[in-house]
Parts: sequence; structure tokens; C-alpha cells
Amino acid sequence: MDIQKIVIVSPMIKELKEHIEQYKLDKNIRYVTEDVLTEEDLDWADVFCGFQVQKDTDYSKVKWVHSLGAGVDGFLYHQDWNENVLLTRTVCSFGQRIGEYCLSYILKDTQEHATFAAQQENKVWREVTPALLDAKIAVIYGTGEIGSTVANILTGFGMKVYGISLSGKQKPAFEQVAAASSNNSLMKEADYVINTLPLTDKTADLFDKSFFNQVGHIGFINVGRGKSVVEDDLIEAIDKEQVRFAVLDVCREEPLPETHAFWRHPNITVTPHISAVTTAKEAADCFVDTLHKVEAGEVLENKVDVQKGY
Amino acid sequence: MDIQKIVIVSPMIKELKEHIEQYKLDKNIRYVTEDVLTEEDLDWADVFCGFQVQKDTDYSKVKWVHSLGAGVDGFLYHQDWNENVLLTRTVCSFGQRIGEYCLSYILKDTQEHATFAAQQENKVWREVTPALLDAKIAVIYGTGEIGSTVANILTGFGMKVYGISLSGKQKPAFEQVAAASSNNSLMKEADYVINTLPLTDKTADLFDKSFFNQVGHIGFINVGRGKSVVEDDLIEAIDKEQVRFAVLDVCREEPLPETHAFWRHPNITVTPHISAVTTAKEAADCFVDTLHKVEAGEVLENKVDVQKGY
Repeated sequence: MDIQKIVIVSPMIKELKEHIEQYKLDKNIRYVTEDVLTEEDLDWADVFCGFQVQKDTDYSKVKWVHSLGAGVDGFLYHQDWNENVLLTRTVCSFGQRIGEYCLSYILKDTQEHATFAAQQENKVWREVTPALLDAKIAVIYGTGEIGSTVANILTGFGMKVYGISLSGKQKPAFEQVAAASSNNSLMKEADYVINTLPLTDKTADLFDKSFFNQVGHIGFINVGRGKSVVEDDLIEAIDKEQVRFAVLDVCREEPLPETHAFWRHPNITVTPHISAVTTAKEAADCFVDTLHKVEAGEVLENKVDVQKGY
Repeated sequence: MDIQKIVIVSPMIKELKEHIEQYKLDKNIRYVTEDVLTEEDLDWADVFCGFQVQKDTDYSKVKWVHSLGAGVDGFLYHQDWNENVLLTRTVCSFGQRIGEYCLSYILKDTQEHATFAAQQENKVWREVTPALLDAKIAVIYGTGEIGSTVANILTGFGMKVYGISLSGKQKPAFEQVAAASSNNSLMKEADYVINTLPLTDKTADLFDKSFFNQVGHIGFINVGRGKSVVEDDLIEAIDKEQVRFAVLDVCREEPLPETHAFWRHPNITVTPHISAVTTAKEAADCFVDTLHKVEAGEVLENKVDVQKGY
């Protein structure tokens, strides 16, 4: 594919420009923020590179769209896509970032940080023995690049890690992978359930009452997408002690509205969608790497299957 | 060595007995708590097995003393020891336990748990990007079994880990090992300093004003012994921002007295000496394993060098 004209749209345009310019690409590049992007930019460009598309704009004028994030629901979810337009996404250290995020909250739990903080508050010196990770079981929804990296980190500590995917296809990082549709007896054993799934029609509202009714007493960590969780059902599951605690890096509406019950729930930790931040350098490196492969006609590991939605 | 009569002294005597009885040893065993231990028990026994010795009691009547903990300062520090008496100590999953403890507090820091908790308290959704561990540098005091296991866990995440030991002898788990006495320029670069050292005359008061004057802006984690830290100097180092935060699993006086400044210090986390708890099962397994080796005259990996004190 011949690419000469590139339009890059991002709130962190200054940093992106700095990193991309170091590559000294022999291309025409426009760096703009979303509010100043015009139809003319799209008419002009061969490739559009950004975090999402605007609903009423026709992106099929370009040959190729590259997502600056890992998730592409901002391009595909409840939107039509012209399949002649190549769609790629940023894949970089997300797995490692999300893995460290998840592990930090699992260790917070096993190492009893809250217990000791409460004891310190009350000047109480009482021994509580932290559990070792090798006694714990995790179930990870999503067995792709991100889910597998998270699994590898946890199994490195002797944790038993099961995967759930659409297909149920076995993957080396997991003790076993089951299909999302199968009735899953291992849910009762799980200590932690981690969602890494992208948002598609099949994953919307996946974590609902019927899911929570399957689990024993889990820590629930959502690093996928907020719309996969039925929020009222999650709160009810905490009340019913099906869920011991939830750590949510994503919510149905972001930023989380001030009036939302999650903010003040003692068993819910809210973080502002930071578990897989793309740094400007990583985004630039991944885009330029993809650009070279697109021009050379090489296989693209980060090409999005528009039908599947990831 | 011929061992027939064993006295085991521990607060968790019931659990220990349960586990040791499963081995069906053909030995005479007395299980007692410390308050009912008598001189007669020691006259009778071939081996004394416990967490510490009492100052005014003569333990040299037995052939062998086995410490139920990893640290043997309760036997040796500021006490005479009859070198005819074999001294061994419990070595089990301490390294892994301490590693998970340390990692949990390092991740709490890199993943900005406190920042996000404060934001949640105020219903603030503001992106802060967690740092990846591979950008961090740790210095571990103590390069033995425990220090090396902690180092392996951290380097597994790409952290750069330096060791400090008495001898400065290189060990595979570390990027580099330096001698404790050498003037250390890498201290300025360290993000975290972890103490895993045993308490001996050489490690008492090691972390004092002159140590803290060497460091940049560290997280300090003490999982060794409380008496290695000059507590007023630590508080001063926090005031001077040489230390960003301290996590102390051990203190000079345990339990930490109610009036102690550590309890209410906003940058100090106190935990009740739990980072390397010996479970009854592990203690029993290690004792019985050592017993078999002592009887067979095999090499003892867990024999204490009484001169060195560990």
C-alpha cells in the first residue's frame, strides 16, 4: 500500500510529533487535535491515525485507519465500517502494564494491606498471615495478547490460571481455556476473575446477574471495557457476597459521573482508565512499525478483524 | 548424631504436634509451651527446638538446637553460645513470602494506589500513568537465600536489582553485588532499598543517618530485623525527603509500643512481623527433614555459622 499523506489526531499531539519526527519519515504529516480535524483532512489523507472516529464523519475516504489505543470499540462498536478500509490497532506493553495493575490489586488482597492499615489506624499489632499466591486460582476472560501476558505473570507465582474465550481454543499461557458459553464449574473455585475482553456485541453486558450467580466469593477486576458489566448486578453481587471486592479501571460512562454509587462503595476501587495507558513513545513506535509493514505488504499482527471487533 | 529425646517449645504447639505426628517418628517427644518449659526438660532432651532461648537458661546441655524461625538472633545476639552445640534454623518458603510482601508494596507505589484512593475519596477522575517496574532500581541488603529470591522476583519484571553483602561476593540473582563497607554511588539511583539482613553486631544500627544521607528518594522496606534501623534517623530521613516512604515489618521493640511515632506517621506502614511467617506445617517439615540429615550425618544447608550469626 502506498502511503504518503498522514493525519494524526490526538490530545497528546505535541509528544507524538516529537517521537515520530525522530524517525525522519519522508511523508506528509498533519498533526491535529480532534476539535480542529476537518473533512478536508480526511479527503487529503491516505491514513487516519487516532483514538476513535466521530459518528457522522466518513472515514472510508482513507485507505487505512490506525487506532492509537488497543481497544477499537471507538471505531466499530455500534458503527458501520467500510471493509475496504484497513483497520489496525496499537499493541505494545499493554499486557505487561495490565498485568502489573492486576497483580498489584491481587497482592493488595493476599498481603492484607487493608487489614494492616486498619490495625495501624488503631495501633493494633495482631499477626495475620498473608496467603501465598500459589494457593490462588484466577480466571481470565480473554486469552489474546493481553490475557496471555497477565496469565504468564500470575502463573509465574504458581497461581492456577484458567482462560475463557469465545472459541474455547487452548492457549499455552493457561492451565485450560473454556468457551464463554459453556457452563463453568471452575467459576465456583476462582479467587479472582479478571476481564480483559474487548467490547463487542458478544461481550456487552456479559458480567450480569447470571454470571455473578456462578461464582463463589471472588475479587473482580475489570481492565476490559465498562459496558461489559451490568453495574447494578455487580453491586447486588457484592451485597450477596458473591463478589468480595471489585477493582474497576473502566466504567460504562467515563469519567464516572459524580453521583455514581461506585465512588463511595467500600468494596469497589475505581481507577481512571489507566491500566493500559499508551505512552506517546510507544504509540509512535507502534504506528511507525505498522506503517513500514503496511508499505512492505507484510503480515500485520495488529490488524483488526472487523467482523469480530478486535 | 543419635537423637532420641526431643523437646519442642512453641506457642503453636498443637498444630506443630499434629504435623510432626504424621511422620510417625520413633522418638520421645515432649511438646510444651515456653511458660512450662523446665530445666529438667533440657537435662532430658537431646535436641531443643524453639523460637528463642531464655537468657538465664543453659542450653548447652542438649546436643542440638533447632530454631523454628529463620532469624537466630533470639539465640545468638548478645548471648554466649557453646560451640559444641549444633545450631540449625528453619529455611522454607521465606524467600517467596518475603518477595511477595516486598513486591506488593513496590506495586502499591508504582500503581499509585494511594493517589487513586485519594482521588476516589474526592470523586476525582484524573489520569495518572502508573510506572512500569522495568524502569525501577532496587538495592537489596543481604544476598543469601531470602535476598536472592526477592531479587529473582523483581528482576522477573525487568527491575534492575543490586545486592549488598558483607563480603561483596557476586551472586547470580543480582546485577552486581557490592560490599556493605564500600562507598556506594548506586545508592543515589535506587528507587527502593530492601533490608533482608539478619541481626548481628555488624548489622545492628546499619541504617542510620550516614546511610540515609547516601540515598536519593527511596522507598525503604525492612523485612530483616528492627534493630538494624536507627528509628529516629529514619523519621528524620523522611522529613528530609531522603525516604519517600517506609514499610516496616520489624521494629526495635515488638509489639510496637502504643506511644511509638511510627503508628501515626503518614509515610510509614507498619505490619506485625508477618512477612515470613512459618506455618506449622512448614516448620514441622523443615525440622523433620533436618532431623533425618543430622542423624545421617549429611551436609546441613541450614546450619548456622555461630561466629557470623546466621
